[in-house]
Amino acid sequence: MLQLVGLGLADETDVTVKGLELIKKAKTVYLEAYTSILLVDSTKLEAYYGRPVVLADRELVESGSDEILADAKDSDVVFLVVGDPFGATTHSDLVLRARELSIPIQTVHNASVMSAIGATGLQLYNFGQAVSMVFFTESWKPSSFYDRLKENHTIGLHTLMLLDIKVKEQSMENLARGRKIYEPPRYMTVAQCASQMLEIEETRGDGICAASKLAVGVARLGATNQRFLAGTLEQLSESDLGAPLHSLILIGRRTHYLERDYLKEFAVDDLFERIWNEDYEDKK
Amino acid sequence: MLQLVGLGLADETDVTVKGLELIKKAKTVYLEAYTSILLVDSTKLEAYYGRPVVLADRELVESGSDEILADAKDSDVVFLVVGDPFGATTHSDLVLRARELSIPIQTVHNASVMSAIGATGLQLYNFGQAVSMVFFTESWKPSSFYDRLKENHTIGLHTLMLLDIKVKEQSMENLARGRKIYEPPRYMTVAQCASQMLEIEETRGDGICAASKLAVGVARLGATNQRFLAGTLEQLSESDLGAPLHSLILIGRRTHYLERDYLKEFAVDDLFERIWNEDYEDKK
Repeated sequence: MLQLVGLGLADETDVTVKGLELIKKAKTVYLEAYTSILLVDSTKLEAYYGRPVVLADRELVESGSDEILADAKDSDVVFLVVGDPFGATTHSDLVLRARELSIPIQTVHNASVMSAIGATGLQLYNFGQAVSMVFFTESWKPSSFYDRLKENHTIGLHTLMLLDIKVKEQSMENLARGRKIYEPPRYMTVAQCASQMLEIEETRGDGICAASKLAVGVARLGATNQRFLAGTLEQLSESDLGAPLHSLILIGRRTHYLERDYLKEFAVDDLFERIWNEDYEDKK
Repeated sequence: MLQLVGLGLADETDVTVKGLELIKKAKTVYLEAYTSILLVDSTKLEAYYGRPVVLADRELVESGSDEILADAKDSDVVFLVVGDPFGATTHSDLVLRARELSIPIQTVHNASVMSAIGATGLQLYNFGQAVSMVFFTESWKPSSFYDRLKENHTIGLHTLMLLDIKVKEQSMENLARGRKIYEPPRYMTVAQCASQMLEIEETRGDGICAASKLAVGVARLGATNQRFLAGTLEQLSESDLGAPLHSLILIGRRTHYLERDYLKEFAVDDLFERIWNEDYEDKK
């Protein structure tokens, strides 16, 4: 059996009791280690589980899934995913491949950023589609996120933005030369995301990501040192929320006063409440 | 301290290790028992935790929150919530009240229907705002859900519909006479939801909930006996997915072929794939 087990958001104790039992009994335990990270590293997980964990990078999951599934035919294989197994990154291709091979599948759900983000006080009902923000380069600044933000904005909805992480990436040169040398991991910060939004606003100009638009920066969601920072995009572009993972919420106009009351504790300064009261509340 | 602990979706082992440790140490443990239910009852939770659990109904949480918070000043009080504490129903009012009283707050996240719904194979990025469906009565058939569905439809997004539950409700007569006699609990089924959608379509007529629109019925998400059923709204209106809880997803047109491949295993019949290929795939 292929057992997809969500690990939740922060540390080794965020696993569910059901998930932990499967981990302890499985023949092999893989950890999907390229689309998100837990805030503790895998040696800590190994110590906690009392057993080895095989890191599964993109290469192994996408082209080596046969290797993962070979064992799952006759024994139990656990595939650990940070957050929920069907959260921001679905592993439906792996599951489809398992189905083709008639391998039974079990899913153990857990907290995902897609719902835990409600901890900011913003109501999940008021969120539209989520979007991803990738690292810009000198020559590649994809702006399709702006279209998605605009769609949500038109309806008055909040948007959760999931920020790029680069794990086990090769430089262009190393890739060209076929050298398996990897760059240090990079995690996009709230400040970088806000800056990229302001940059695209300059060319698009619809005001969706104007400097005065309200947003919430989120760091280390679910950890004891989690931080929320509410302010304008300009303020967030100058923020420092510390260690990863970060995400950002662009606030929509279909708001509820309880959302404001909850958020104002996390505001950079009074500007947040002033703009909210003038431009947001009941302004949809 | 007020400790909000998510219980996840199905049974007593869906609690996280972190959450279970808090439950075992807390002075008092409340279970929010009016907006959702776990698929096991609270006596099973009590046996599993080895301690009593106080059922908190709407009355206690909304008007008696002082009682819950009184203990949280000097000791740890756990407030259990099915799913995630900040999922479909936020308890931000309780948290705001705790903040006013300078009571520290800790949140232990868990799986929520808002993200676990990805288990259907539909990608969370392709979901717009979620909506609620309430039980219609002879004289009260609120149709604002139709406007929300239309907003999502215009963008091509899926919509998760959360279905009404009635727990500890009084009949009009008992309410009028001040008799604390409660009706048996009621949980909306996929069939009832689909029927109400078809009923409102008759008056609205924009085709958003036409009989041939594709949807997925979801029952007991996260449990070993969970069921998904993909088909037209008409087919789902005649379905029987068994015991609660149910929810329903109206499929949008911004689809990916992997979503279809994943879902077709759960289709009522070939009609699902035929309509998908003709009207949905890449039709946004």
